[in-house]
Amino acid sequence: MTSPLDKLREYGYELPMPKAPVATYIPVTRSGNIVYVSGQISSDASGVAAGKLGDNMNVVQGGNAAELAAVNFLSQVVHSAGADLTKVRVLKLTVFVNSTPEFAEHHLVANGASNLIVGVLGDKGKHARSAIGMAALPLGAAVEVEGIVEIEA
Amino acid sequence: MTSPLDKLREYGYELPMPKAPVATYIPVTRSGNIVYVSGQISSDASGVAAGKLGDNMNVVQGGNAAELAAVNFLSQVVHSAGADLTKVRVLKLTVFVNSTPEFAEHHLVANGASNLIVGVLGDKGKHARSAIGMAALPLGAAVEVEGIVEIEA
Amino acid sequence: MTSPLDKLREYGYELPMPKAPVATYIPVTRSGNIVYVSGQISSDASGVAAGKLGDNMNVVQGGNAAELAAVNFLSQVVHSAGADLTKVRVLKLTVFVNSTPEFAEHHLVANGASNLIVGVLGDKGKHARSAIGMAALPLGAAVEVEGIVEIEA
Repeated sequence: MTSPLDKLREYGYELPMPKAPVATYIPVTRSGNIVYVSGQISSDASGVAAGKLGDNMNVVQGGNAAELAAVNFLSQVVHSAGADLTKVRVLKLTVFVNSTPEFAEHHLVANGASNLIVGVLGDKGKHARSAIGMAALPLGAAVEVEGIVEIEA
Repeated sequence: MTSPLDKLREYGYELPMPKAPVATYIPVTRSGNIVYVSGQISSDASGVAAGKLGDNMNVVQGGNAAELAAVNFLSQVVHSAGADLTKVRVLKLTVFVNSTPEFAEHHLVANGASNLIVGVLGDKGKHARSAIGMAALPLGAAVEVEGIVEIEA
Repeated sequence: MTSPLDKLREYGYELPMPKAPVATYIPVTRSGNIVYVSGQISSDASGVAAGKLGDNMNVVQGGNAAELAAVNFLSQVVHSAGADLTKVRVLKLTVFVNSTPEFAEHHLVANGASNLIVGVLGDKGKHARSAIGMAALPLGAAVEVEGIVEIEA
């Protein structure tokens, strides 16, 4: 059987080590079998995927940025929550999209994150979701993804 | 006794069949007795209630759009989560309002959603809430509502 | 031992009595040991701390506004949820920052809320967090903070 990490490689990603938050908040908290994951911006080893949809970034580029944020989300689930990805069910994702006031395809950008999560985790990756347009995001990131997951016993 | 669906009719709404998400996310997820509901935009059979508060939509029109989003929210709770509305307690709503940078009455717009939910569900509809101003929303919607509900055993 | 309320005084704050929501939503809901807290804007007895980061408010002023919102958040946990602050664990905060499209330091503004919460509650105040840039907020507030806390038995 193909493991979640193998599937992630098929998308072209290795699971990165997460960056520590530069503040007093922490990457994840857990209550019972529920884990809350802090907002993860679109970034990789080469830096922040910065941009604004409707201005200097198109839907394809935005979808790629959403993928990066989703990879960082999975990284926190594994490295900070200590979860085995085969035991993870994603309950909710919120996909914050940095956009102009005129942009109206946040859902298509967010699909970059949703498709990767479901591609990697299968049916247990199928999540409730909101996709919304932000005035701005930290460090000018194009996308930020937060979420809630359940860890199976 | 007046049923929740009767009360909804008093507001002038029949519970619509929800639209399927056009992506890999799903309308609702459930963990134990908690249901997470995906963001529902302001739309009905005639299309999307699009607009931006502070620009081309006033508070009354925005409140009506918030009602539509709340109706779609209830529809997902019934049709996708399979819940009996008499058993539903609403824990949290987030009301995303598409607005200009100058608009400052998001709470009044959000009352359209809150009042309908409480009017239909009674005390069990009384929810925690955030009302916030978005740069933009999918399809240009004026309002999007997401939330968390508890299903009584 | 220094109590949470003593620590709050070291930050220069007395816990205020919360304002009642002027709508049908309520300040907090509880399901089991989990409490959902409605969005609290940056305000104190002298009024709303209004402003927009990147325009008429700098990061230090924004951080102070975030502190006010965090104090109001704690006030709701104590006065509306009836919790003893020594029994409270903060699972998640979302810090909504009113900002221009160009502003990129929402995380630094949000630290005003995070640092106060952790300063007052200690390790149990360490929370997952998202910091995001809003087009606008109710009453022109500079910051709004919502969250989820766990009450220990």
